[in-house]
Amino acid sequence: MDFASDNGAGVAPEILEAIAQSSRLRAPAYGADDFSARAAKRLADVFETEVDVFLVATGTGANALALSALARPWEAVFCHDEAHVHDDECGAPEFFTGGAKLVGIAGEGGKVAADPLRETLARFPRGLVKSSQPGALSLSQASEAGTIYRRDEIAELCAIAHAAGVRTHMDGARFANALVSSGLSPAEMTWRAGIDALSFGATKNGALACEAVVFFDRALAQDFAYLRKRGGHTLSKGRFLGAQMEAYLTDGLWLRLAERANASARTLATALAARPGARLAWPTEANEVFAVVPDATVAAWRTAGAKFYEWSTRSLAADRAPRAGETLVRLVTSFETTAEEIERLVALAGLPLSKG
Amino acid sequence: MDFASDNGAGVAPEILEAIAQSSRLRAPAYGADDFSARAAKRLADVFETEVDVFLVATGTGANALALSALARPWEAVFCHDEAHVHDDECGAPEFFTGGAKLVGIAGEGGKVAADPLRETLARFPRGLVKSSQPGALSLSQASEAGTIYRRDEIAELCAIAHAAGVRTHMDGARFANALVSSGLSPAEMTWRAGIDALSFGATKNGALACEAVVFFDRALAQDFAYLRKRGGHTLSKGRFLGAQMEAYLTDGLWLRLAERANASARTLATALAARPGARLAWPTEANEVFAVVPDATVAAWRTAGAKFYEWSTRSLAADRAPRAGETLVRLVTSFETTAEEIERLVALAGLPLSKG
Amino acid sequence: MDFASDNGAGVAPEILEAIAQSSRLRAPAYGADDFSARAAKRLADVFETEVDVFLVATGTGANALALSALARPWEAVFCHDEAHVHDDECGAPEFFTGGAKLVGIAGEGGKVAADPLRETLARFPRGLVKSSQPGALSLSQASEAGTIYRRDEIAELCAIAHAAGVRTHMDGARFANALVSSGLSPAEMTWRAGIDALSFGATKNGALACEAVVFFDRALAQDFAYLRKRGGHTLSKGRFLGAQMEAYLTDGLWLRLAERANASARTLATALAARPGARLAWPTEANEVFAVVPDATVAAWRTAGAKFYEWSTRSLAADRAPRAGETLVRLVTSFETTAEEIERLVALAGLPLSKG
Amino acid sequence: MDFASDNGAGVAPEILEAIAQSSRLRAPAYGADDFSARAAKRLADVFETEVDVFLVATGTGANALALSALARPWEAVFCHDEAHVHDDECGAPEFFTGGAKLVGIAGEGGKVAADPLRETLARFPRGLVKSSQPGALSLSQASEAGTIYRRDEIAELCAIAHAAGVRTHMDGARFANALVSSGLSPAEMTWRAGIDALSFGATKNGALACEAVVFFDRALAQDFAYLRKRGGHTLSKGRFLGAQMEAYLTDGLWLRLAERANASARTLATALAARPGARLAWPTEANEVFAVVPDATVAAWRTAGAKFYEWSTRSLAADRAPRAGETLVRLVTSFETTAEEIERLVALAGLPLSKG
Repeated sequence: MDFASDNGAGVAPEILEAIAQSSRLRAPAYGADDFSARAAKRLADVFETEVDVFLVATGTGANALALSALARPWEAVFCHDEAHVHDDECGAPEFFTGGAKLVGIAGEGGKVAADPLRETLARFPRGLVKSSQPGALSLSQASEAGTIYRRDEIAELCAIAHAAGVRTHMDGARFANALVSSGLSPAEMTWRAGIDALSFGATKNGALACEAVVFFDRALAQDFAYLRKRGGHTLSKGRFLGAQMEAYLTDGLWLRLAERANASARTLATALAARPGARLAWPTEANEVFAVVPDATVAAWRTAGAKFYEWSTRSLAADRAPRAGETLVRLVTSFETTAEEIERLVALAGLPLSKG
Repeated sequence: MDFASDNGAGVAPEILEAIAQSSRLRAPAYGADDFSARAAKRLADVFETEVDVFLVATGTGANALALSALARPWEAVFCHDEAHVHDDECGAPEFFTGGAKLVGIAGEGGKVAADPLRETLARFPRGLVKSSQPGALSLSQASEAGTIYRRDEIAELCAIAHAAGVRTHMDGARFANALVSSGLSPAEMTWRAGIDALSFGATKNGALACEAVVFFDRALAQDFAYLRKRGGHTLSKGRFLGAQMEAYLTDGLWLRLAERANASARTLATALAARPGARLAWPTEANEVFAVVPDATVAAWRTAGAKFYEWSTRSLAADRAPRAGETLVRLVTSFETTAEEIERLVALAGLPLSKG
Repeated sequence: MDFASDNGAGVAPEILEAIAQSSRLRAPAYGADDFSARAAKRLADVFETEVDVFLVATGTGANALALSALARPWEAVFCHDEAHVHDDECGAPEFFTGGAKLVGIAGEGGKVAADPLRETLARFPRGLVKSSQPGALSLSQASEAGTIYRRDEIAELCAIAHAAGVRTHMDGARFANALVSSGLSPAEMTWRAGIDALSFGATKNGALACEAVVFFDRALAQDFAYLRKRGGHTLSKGRFLGAQMEAYLTDGLWLRLAERANASARTLATALAARPGARLAWPTEANEVFAVVPDATVAAWRTAGAKFYEWSTRSLAADRAPRAGETLVRLVTSFETTAEEIERLVALAGLPLSKG
Repeated sequence: MDFASDNGAGVAPEILEAIAQSSRLRAPAYGADDFSARAAKRLADVFETEVDVFLVATGTGANALALSALARPWEAVFCHDEAHVHDDECGAPEFFTGGAKLVGIAGEGGKVAADPLRETLARFPRGLVKSSQPGALSLSQASEAGTIYRRDEIAELCAIAHAAGVRTHMDGARFANALVSSGLSPAEMTWRAGIDALSFGATKNGALACEAVVFFDRALAQDFAYLRKRGGHTLSKGRFLGAQMEAYLTDGLWLRLAERANASARTLATALAARPGARLAWPTEANEVFAVVPDATVAAWRTAGAKFYEWSTRSLAADRAPRAGETLVRLVTSFETTAEEIERLVALAGLPLSKG
């Protein structure tokens, strides 16, 4: 019963096979190979537009590098105040940008809302020299609370940002999970809504170690090859990134993997919500279930060896927050999560799994 | 006929199999897995001492992170003036150290010699505030010229460095190739000779993407977990680094792979040196052959589709440097290089391959 | 009627004379002069302890350099969310620390309170690699709201910080103003309450351009000479910093200048508070008056050529915040502010100056 | 007998008076004052073109900030290998640029020559991702060897740089000394010869602490206000920089002060060169005399309390380098150097001062 993270899963067989296949021939180093070229082409197809693509091995690398292309050292990067880039990357965005200021914006359910964004931007006047200048907005899709931004929300936030001269980034570590949940096309969820650059994650959704930085505003990609290289993120055997990404995007594999993880999360969420004493903190819109459960349930799960995180947040409305005797937990599903794992976890919550 | 780089090779089958095996189970994220723990244990065994080990996916990441643990932002990092860290990493060491000054030291055959090191250190007096302070020495083993440092050379250079309060780093992107050529034990070639931290490369010698930063002076590793994380070099599915490194070090695989590449280089070097009009620039001591050949040979090779680099250097004595009508080339072998590739390349140099 | 900033004042005559005197002789460069040595000695006397002292020309330089000595690049610096280091230095602390994360803590009246500090620290667990590590706490004395921390408040905050392994900094751009208001000794307001390093401002209080970074925890000063030099903050004719600071601390000049500015602020605050329709936002505890006044008053002041800032803040309780038709203004006094300036300003607020 | 540095001198009386005068009124903070505006206007007049001007207090600040506007973090800054920016600023350019690589170019007499510059540029191919990219060229005028670049030399070097897409900087810490020696106009020595940005020093030539960063290519100045602010180099009482610079440029004061220092250097150089056993290392073209003298002379000078530096260099041709029993010394004159100081120093060299 491993609900600790989608990073605990292995590699999808199709991707593993692609790695093995690509290993059979010689290939130019540092990303100048055919696999990487085809992966870039597929991303352009997926997003229905010309893009600049840079493959890297980690999500933190993708995010921090992307932000360093979008924000100058004396600028501010706006994000949700519990965003991964702000809370979980040990200052990587500050490091890669050369000292840009990360500015967290509070918001229910892990999402930045329009008014708080406007108010925050008003505190960073363009041209006021003593103030960090407005640089970039980063939106996590799906969010750290497992929720997703609607198309209109993204469009409104990007419009506010662009009106202030602020470039827009989407942290898509769980892009596929958000996408299949949203019903949108990749283009609709990104550049058509105003996103300039995207961290397109594959690792959590079945790759070995592969993320793409995708630039829709290609002028922002101008120096990215140097940024990536000096960040140590240009793999020498770059074909193995290309091979992963190509397989990931072939025949809809990425969508199937994401749908599988999301379905597991929905099943789990529905079952837990039906338990007496349990409730969802936020709606389960991707592959993460945030639930408030009795402490006894937490204890039962721990005893049974289940893996998951107890969670703390500032994004939860007071009336849904855990009370005495309750704990907020995060339960993450992946393409590998089995029905049996879910059943056991739910069973341990006290009552048999409700059918449906 | 691919002699462009050992990065052009694929992955050794044993390592590919280990990756596949490790994918079959769930594992904790970010390097807290058993594979990584076993890899660290094996490195301790290999080096016959307690070490702190951090796995990363790229050599530039390993080098730049290691140097950032050894040198403070206001310090200088001394290295050969054609060292990879100085010439081929787009300023990564400067970036990761927060602005340390890379100071190149000229030397024949890609190697730093004792007297130039002493003279250079004398230009950076400890305590002279206007001067960058002496911070770290980085030695490439094997060097960028395909040569290797002898045990006594390493020991003398490290002694000079330590006497000046300078920490010592070995860039071992081709550590295995140097090791099997040297006849030394891993301990003798590193910490017993005075090396404080090592970039232990596996990628060029058969891994997919895996390098270890190995600290012999463990106090220097104190903050490394944070440095690696904020550099974006902590892989989420860290087990795949662990699995690669474990397989690499199992049953002497790493030594066999390196010996295979080195043997190919020796064969090639011997054959080329026997050609009229060709000569070796430096002795072939690892898996790189640097040869001065007639321009006509370069043309013949290109026509036949051979891949290799024409080379420029400041490390070559005038009497061995290319003259009019000659070109210096770099020919790199890997564990995948075939006898047939070598034979064809040599044959194209004008005459049949000499036997032996 | 210049109430825009205490930076608008000139130089106290005693300090100007000291500069002129010190110019008459030759002096070693870069701070190795007798003036600087005597200034350091005076600061040790003032603080009744051994200190390491580094003079610089700007407050931003003093703060950012001090923080770079207290926090490592992967750490967090905690401060009030409207602190000068966070809001008004264009990211200088991020730059000098190499990318540390500034974490603002909300608090009434510009001050960090104990519970919010504890809650914030709890979000940055020591040893959790993905999280910026707890590094430094910076307290502004006087605060950006013109208030001052009591001795017990400083002691409690420093104790909380130290218990978490967090080093403590005081931004004393208006240290003298806070000190004379507090009734404390310099030692009581700083190291005896737990402060490790202080930006000791003189510029706003009568110097030309002179601030001291004072280390009470002298181990933290170990590399500061290099930090200052590479920041470009080591003046070549360093004697002129020494001469300013020496004169500033001679015969209690600094205390007299601060008392003069504070007295002006008290007079102004008292008079304004007595005006119908006006009220103080926060108590006037140093040399800054924050008042909520009718928009008509703002208009009258502007028409008459008065200089001051309209202010926005998140540190003001809702019941004291400006309502429709009201504006929050900041009025800063200096040692040069005249009774006449105050009288005119108050008179323009609508009614004759109340006597007392 | 103080020949240690021109930083040992005081402030020219005219500048001191201007500081005192400017102190009598209130002025806006942070450089928005009339003094700074007039100083900028004067610089535009002096250089006969539109310029963007930023005043700072230190030469290291001016150089490092200027270079950070000219070179991106992944670029290289080319300079003489004994340039002040490379050897004497504790890595400030690396810090401010965010990690650009300083690349020293050897050259006789402290000057970069055209061929070595071309050869160096050839080692940094534009677009080769692994290589630091060509960013900026910095020329010191006068050089660290007290020599000056001729107009044609500057023009040729700048043309080579610009042809390679490299921006050009002049470190003019001793600009006035070079200028009056050269017979050129300020425009001829800078932008008409191809200089994009200049560190225009005043401190060594009679100011208290004042340098201007002057942009001839004004597009490069676009973000400089933020760079200066976050570097802590925007003085709060900025008028005092403006007042210094205005006075410095009024009625040719700056030229008279420089001519005085240069004349002293010429007198000293001529007298020393006439001494048996002494010789000049390089021609004395500004206000620094580099002489090779008998060790006995050094001893006599030290005994008499003379202040100066023994010098080591890589810029001196072997046939002029000190032999056994000889020492290379640097003797710097300033506008305060007296005829008597020179006479005593020369007299102590062993023989009476030659007349003329």
